[in-house]
Amino acid sequence: MNVTVAIDCMGGDHGAHVTVPAALNVMRRDPDTAFILVGQRDAIERELARLNAAADMRLQIEHASEMVEMDESAAAALRKKKDSSIRVGVNLVKEGRADAFVSAGNTGALMAISRFVLKTLPGVERPAIASILPTLKGHTYVLDLGANVDCTPEHLLQFGIMCAELVTSVEHKERPTVGLLNIGVEDIKGNELVKRAAELMRASGLNFYGYVEGDDIYKGTTDIVVCDGFVGNVALKTSEGLAQMLATYLREEFGRNLFARLAGLAALPVINAFKRRTDHRRYNGASLLGLCGIVVKSHGSADTFAFEYAIRRAVEEARSGVLAHITERMAAIQKSAA
Amino acid sequence: MNVTVAIDCMGGDHGAHVTVPAALNVMRRDPDTAFILVGQRDAIERELARLNAAADMRLQIEHASEMVEMDESAAAALRKKKDSSIRVGVNLVKEGRADAFVSAGNTGALMAISRFVLKTLPGVERPAIASILPTLKGHTYVLDLGANVDCTPEHLLQFGIMCAELVTSVEHKERPTVGLLNIGVEDIKGNELVKRAAELMRASGLNFYGYVEGDDIYKGTTDIVVCDGFVGNVALKTSEGLAQMLATYLREEFGRNLFARLAGLAALPVINAFKRRTDHRRYNGASLLGLCGIVVKSHGSADTFAFEYAIRRAVEEARSGVLAHITERMAAIQKSAA
Repeated sequence: MNVTVAIDCMGGDHGAHVTVPAALNVMRRDPDTAFILVGQRDAIERELARLNAAADMRLQIEHASEMVEMDESAAAALRKKKDSSIRVGVNLVKEGRADAFVSAGNTGALMAISRFVLKTLPGVERPAIASILPTLKGHTYVLDLGANVDCTPEHLLQFGIMCAELVTSVEHKERPTVGLLNIGVEDIKGNELVKRAAELMRASGLNFYGYVEGDDIYKGTTDIVVCDGFVGNVALKTSEGLAQMLATYLREEFGRNLFARLAGLAALPVINAFKRRTDHRRYNGASLLGLCGIVVKSHGSADTFAFEYAIRRAVEEARSGVLAHITERMAAIQKSAA
Repeated sequence: MNVTVAIDCMGGDHGAHVTVPAALNVMRRDPDTAFILVGQRDAIERELARLNAAADMRLQIEHASEMVEMDESAAAALRKKKDSSIRVGVNLVKEGRADAFVSAGNTGALMAISRFVLKTLPGVERPAIASILPTLKGHTYVLDLGANVDCTPEHLLQFGIMCAELVTSVEHKERPTVGLLNIGVEDIKGNELVKRAAELMRASGLNFYGYVEGDDIYKGTTDIVVCDGFVGNVALKTSEGLAQMLATYLREEFGRNLFARLAGLAALPVINAFKRRTDHRRYNGASLLGLCGIVVKSHGSADTFAFEYAIRRAVEEARSGVLAHITERMAAIQKSAA
């Protein structure tokens, strides 16, 4: 299926230097994709020239005169920057000129603008941010990762339903298992939010596994782990911090003296295989789920390799028909509840 | 200072096989310690015989006929098992026969029984569980790790105050920095709980650093990280899961083929140095903070090496006078508020 993806070329730590080559790489490898590069025309054209490329039918430029800063408040970005690269990109999805939008920019602004412009799918109360994390068994989807800091049990149920449709659509996995993140697996454990959410999930027709704990994320106990955005964000950031600390320690130990450096040389292919396997860049690209349109958030520090993964995720979602599937499912639930 | 520590010899995955030799090891290395081994007398005596040791003045046995199961509810353990090793051990602290109690048993039951028997220190509304985690700079105290799933801003403030006294008492660090775990460092980020807790902390006289994020735990940004028990428990368990996954991957890569195994042999001293540095056993022993008595919780799966660290933590706390310091501080705050 032909897919057109709008790319925020200004967002993230590296802007056009990362986003433009990433788009070119995906375009060259996947003949059924086209791109609209959104941002300051000069900067994008300079980057294309540097890469010996030029705009054409499959590679258009859409000028945007403004940029949302990484520390700008979502409300200010929404109200004041009507010509930001995020706003223009989301508008392209709204107008049907693009099938998806990818940005490495300010997460809060991206969510606020997407929600304001695209609106949520029928029946969806709150959009959520879903990301993929590596596990001992493969990978797991975790949501919400920070869009919603105060959730109701109904929100958590909807996150589970939306993400189950995403996994079924993109991975062709029927009835993926859904775990609810808690601080114990016994029924009596947890706060009121998770206890009530568990009741709703049990009655929902979801393939509800029950409670899972933090370590179940990386064990790969369930296909999906649902939690509120505060808890999910802390779990994600804590993981990033721990991984960075361990990587630093490993580097320091292999650089400690001549013997360690020689051992490091001998072990280099093994260490590299380990690094490839745990490379978080291959999991880059979080889905803003529940909107009338596909929006994917890349990590702000993404390099070209990582940003390509975010683009490919947007392409996959656009081809999967996930929006129709979520809409159908929400309608079926509302009908059975009526 | 002479310290007597009561040891729950039945709790944890390994019972007396781990707890008794750990107590002996600490006793032999630290001449100013004495121990009361709590549990089934037969089992303890058999273990002492196996280790060519015997009860004496510094090593008494206190019989307890029951044991709290790891999956037993705290309420049931509190109500029905009046002669459990946990109950008997906590009673020894209450009666002043022991200066501290260490258990690798059921966390919920340990907290419920400790709270019921010992009560909280004057002014303390809720006890919390504080643990040490390794960081890039050394280590950090994180609390609460699961005792309180629904916290008020006042509880979080008290956690910060109690832990600051602990760090000052045990590590002789004046005015340790306190961070409040949030999902962003800007003032507008977070839920109502953290926003109000931040206001209280700013006005409290604590050395309040401000908001920190999940990755700041392992960066070692602050000496103390405060969060509610649900979030803290998820952060801790998620870290455990990630560390296990990475260790598994590393082991698998070094076992993949003959070359990798040879490289692993060459790199063994380096890998071992890395393992030592990241060995979570050296951080075993979480403090139940805010009680009228010192209670330390060991990880249930602790081996002898790990359990020794939990015992040594209890000894350090007993020598530090932390209970008096927390009491003084709470009194000073209540006086200034009155």
